[in-house]
Amino acid sequence: MKYLAKMTITLRDGILDVQGKTVEHALHSIEFEMIENVRIGKYVVLEVEADSKKEARELVDSACSKLIANPIIEDYVITIE
Amino acid sequence: MKYLAKMTITLRDGILDVQGKTVEHALHSIEFEMIENVRIGKYVVLEVEADSKKEARELVDSACSKLIANPIIEDYVITIE
Repeated sequence: MKYLAKMTITLRDGILDVQGKTVEHALHSIEFEMIENVRIGKYVVLEVEADSKKEARELVDSACSKLIANPIIEDYVITIE
Repeated sequence: MKYLAKMTITLRDGILDVQGKTVEHALHSIEFEMIENVRIGKYVVLEVEADSKKEARELVDSACSKLIANPIIEDYVITIE
């Protein structure tokens, strides 16, 4: 069966988010001073062929830790539909 | 009041996702052939100071369309907490 997997990948707390800081400064320069603490991560959507939702999650978790995310500096949350 | 806004920004259907295709090929090369249609977007989390949830959403929507996302090729979904 085919499952749809959605992942949000975010930098761990304490890891400097250079891209987020840059966007925050740019927002402040165009009058969005009320916006703070911008953190930018990745959002990945993919399809996975598996026998069960459990197997789908295991496969995606393995793909995430091996290639899609960097577990040393990133956290990820997987949703299977 | 301070609100937490979360945005998922994805390439519109029909727009070639080069990054997604690259990750898909890389996954296939390490035995993840069961994974297909990888699409990679952005996940943005930020704090916004506003008088109401409605105002917070309007501010974030405006920031998104002006700077964070590219509305010509990307769709975005905003969640306010």
